[in-house]
Amino acid sequence: MSEFRWDPLKNNWAIIAKGQSRRPQDFLQQRQVAEMSSCPFCDKNEDKTPPEIYAHRPDGSAPNQTGWKVRVIPNKFPALRIEGELDNQAEGLYDRMNGVGAHEIIIETPDHDKCLGDLSVEEIAEVLKAYRARMLDLRNDSRFRYIFIFKNHGIEASANIPHSHSQLIAVPLIPPLVATKLNTSREHFQRKERCLICDLIKQEKTATDRIVRDDGNFLVYVPYAARFPFELMIAPQEHSHDFTLQTDQKLLLLAETLRNTLLRMRAVLKDPPYSFILHNAPPMHLRWGRPDYWASFPSDYHWHIELVPKLTRVAGFEWGSGFHINPTPPEEAAEFLRNADLRNY
Amino acid sequence: MSEFRWDPLKNNWAIIAKGQSRRPQDFLQQRQVAEMSSCPFCDKNEDKTPPEIYAHRPDGSAPNQTGWKVRVIPNKFPALRIEGELDNQAEGLYDRMNGVGAHEIIIETPDHDKCLGDLSVEEIAEVLKAYRARMLDLRNDSRFRYIFIFKNHGIEASANIPHSHSQLIAVPLIPPLVATKLNTSREHFQRKERCLICDLIKQEKTATDRIVRDDGNFLVYVPYAARFPFELMIAPQEHSHDFTLQTDQKLLLLAETLRNTLLRMRAVLKDPPYSFILHNAPPMHLRWGRPDYWASFPSDYHWHIELVPKLTRVAGFEWGSGFHINPTPPEEAAEFLRNADLRNY
Repeated sequence: MSEFRWDPLKNNWAIIAKGQSRRPQDFLQQRQVAEMSSCPFCDKNEDKTPPEIYAHRPDGSAPNQTGWKVRVIPNKFPALRIEGELDNQAEGLYDRMNGVGAHEIIIETPDHDKCLGDLSVEEIAEVLKAYRARMLDLRNDSRFRYIFIFKNHGIEASANIPHSHSQLIAVPLIPPLVATKLNTSREHFQRKERCLICDLIKQEKTATDRIVRDDGNFLVYVPYAARFPFELMIAPQEHSHDFTLQTDQKLLLLAETLRNTLLRMRAVLKDPPYSFILHNAPPMHLRWGRPDYWASFPSDYHWHIELVPKLTRVAGFEWGSGFHINPTPPEEAAEFLRNADLRNY
Repeated sequence: MSEFRWDPLKNNWAIIAKGQSRRPQDFLQQRQVAEMSSCPFCDKNEDKTPPEIYAHRPDGSAPNQTGWKVRVIPNKFPALRIEGELDNQAEGLYDRMNGVGAHEIIIETPDHDKCLGDLSVEEIAEVLKAYRARMLDLRNDSRFRYIFIFKNHGIEASANIPHSHSQLIAVPLIPPLVATKLNTSREHFQRKERCLICDLIKQEKTATDRIVRDDGNFLVYVPYAARFPFELMIAPQEHSHDFTLQTDQKLLLLAETLRNTLLRMRAVLKDPPYSFILHNAPPMHLRWGRPDYWASFPSDYHWHIELVPKLTRVAGFEWGSGFHINPTPPEEAAEFLRNADLRNY
């Protein structure tokens, strides 16, 4: 029998199927490969993009030329624009403000044919350092209340350009699902003087059956009330509210965890399309509503990464109800990923 | 420049693109057609489904035989099971309960090759009467707090069986997005002694630029902060909290509105995959949390239908943030649909 499961972090229920659950091979399907005549994200095509904002250039090469290993550029077709004021105002019962924000592309490698999981641990760490650098820089713009880093891999996950890249979006308000997580974390902290995600990690380490990987630094596990099959949570085991405070050494450990997790997904689900998103606390000087609200307990949050392979379609029931139907029990998904044979990867 | 728009009903923001907005022809794409050797939903295949729960049989034919025009059956592969108790309990920090619920299929026509928009107004009205009958019947089961009716049309909208059908899911809790809508409606009513959706309808009728169709009975409009391109709201203009109170005459008018709206979508978007969902108030005896909470103001809600063509993919940013990026401004979408040429449909 399937179960409803409530996630105290999202304050949300999911339906977990049992019995007729889907297994990895049920999700294997033919996938399209997009081809481009000339990729703007490739080495030596630097003139096909807007000027770079950040780059990792170990050879000391000049900006907007070959020689980079990681490169950050403004999105040529941004969802939000960096210029202008918010101009927020009511429109009758509604409310509006201008689409002010930053939208950047983090090109993870100059090599068109490599994806994130193909990179070395050191190369992935440089991508993570680019995330950190861009987040720190954009915090100087007081219009932005929140900064998102996310990645879509594969056509089904909406990656329109196949060359491996992540995206950054900075927004002038706290997004609804982030606000929910911040609020549930805060309520838990205020009630118990403990971090909610620290408590969840402790419970998962006791239960063990949803853990995919535990290297003592980062914990990779399938959430109890996972909305999607093979959804994963990656969190530092040592409490930390802010990704940008991570040292180079910690980012190297995170890179190792991320690479290992991507290879497990590849081994079990045959290179599935996937998305991940970095959930971070809003920085202290970024405030929502009242000037001191998020600043008052800056460390009651716990940064983490949500990683979801795109295996199912979201349909009427899910978007209408907020319930997601997950056809693979988290414990089974974790077992498949935990036992993945990585010898060929 | 794009805009953030806040929807007081969902208490949620959406980003509305302007300037680089996508137009109907941008969404036209090749679509797969699923074929089945023998369709269990077809006329004369009644023995291939579980026994029927409801049927419209104008010829007075016996159950589970040919002669029906609309037929309701239990889903053979249900997401929820009708038997058993909830057994809700904590699991450490988590909460769980059994996946108790009803999952039914409303087969809208015996004809395999017709879809809902191909049916006559009278035939669609019979489908709506089936919705009403099943909702009324399931209210007798006090385990169910909410009853959902929804439809997925086309492969991309997750309709696995091409034969035209809707689905009913009854659940033992108020789904999160429904709870949000119920709460925002209640707060508005308590503050102003007016219905929120009545107020929205009034504002839309004054603005006029998001209205697709207004026959004086039902209003079809694109929500101000639509999450998806060409998303539509269909609501009765006369206040009504409960779909099951609609008379046969009202359902005939709704059928005409629904048919007209589907034909407009077909004309403008070339038979897109779509989903719709019927949002109804929970019945008075169905209570959530405190025994009298939803029962105390049974009529502060306003039933409506949300209709969304599936034109875009939801990716990392949307599911991680709760922000949806809508590439078509509601006013432009409404104009396309309002001016649809229906002469050939």
